[in-house]
Amino acid sequence: MMEKLTGPDRDRALAGLPDWSLAEGRDAITRKYRFADFKTAFAFMTAVAEIADEMDHHPEWFNVYNRIDVTLSTHDAGGLTMLDIDLAVQMDELAAGEPETA
Amino acid sequence: MMEKLTGPDRDRALAGLPDWSLAEGRDAITRKYRFADFKTAFAFMTAVAEIADEMDHHPEWFNVYNRIDVTLSTHDAGGLTMLDIDLAVQMDELAAGEPETA
Repeated sequence: MMEKLTGPDRDRALAGLPDWSLAEGRDAITRKYRFADFKTAFAFMTAVAEIADEMDHHPEWFNVYNRIDVTLSTHDAGGLTMLDIDLAVQMDELAAGEPETA
Repeated sequence: MMEKLTGPDRDRALAGLPDWSLAEGRDAITRKYRFADFKTAFAFMTAVAEIADEMDHHPEWFNVYNRIDVTLSTHDAGGLTMLDIDLAVQMDELAAGEPETA
């Protein structure tokens, strides 16, 4: 089972994700994405869903129109693990390929 | 522009959606869907996204794993309109075709 990130490992992992913040009241990270429109936002979600299913690690996410608010945490570990960091990095890579991201 | 539902029209429309509730603090309807797993839940979202894009009317929705919490309201009208009712009916029809829905 994946272990919770602590100490310098955790600091290093978070330093690599400058667009993510710590969620309030729980051991999780969160980021808001904005796209040009719903179609672009949902295409991003579809690409992320495929990765998430392969990882068997799923985001908590809210969408309305072009907005997606994502929170990542590892339920089984009760907090942030490398699974969350890996998924966040892959999401950012996908969003970076999308010129309409704001 | 679509007009807000009021009076008997509104009552009749809501009576046709027994699995939906009025959202707290705003003129909107809400429903929680549960599916067998993430893949099934996201396939439902993908089908809904296509309909929403055709209607140019988009849900507010939260997903984690097999759960989807949906809120529908018409931003331009400042409340519930027939667009929301139409989208809710189509979502329920899609979910009803999915035997794993709980």
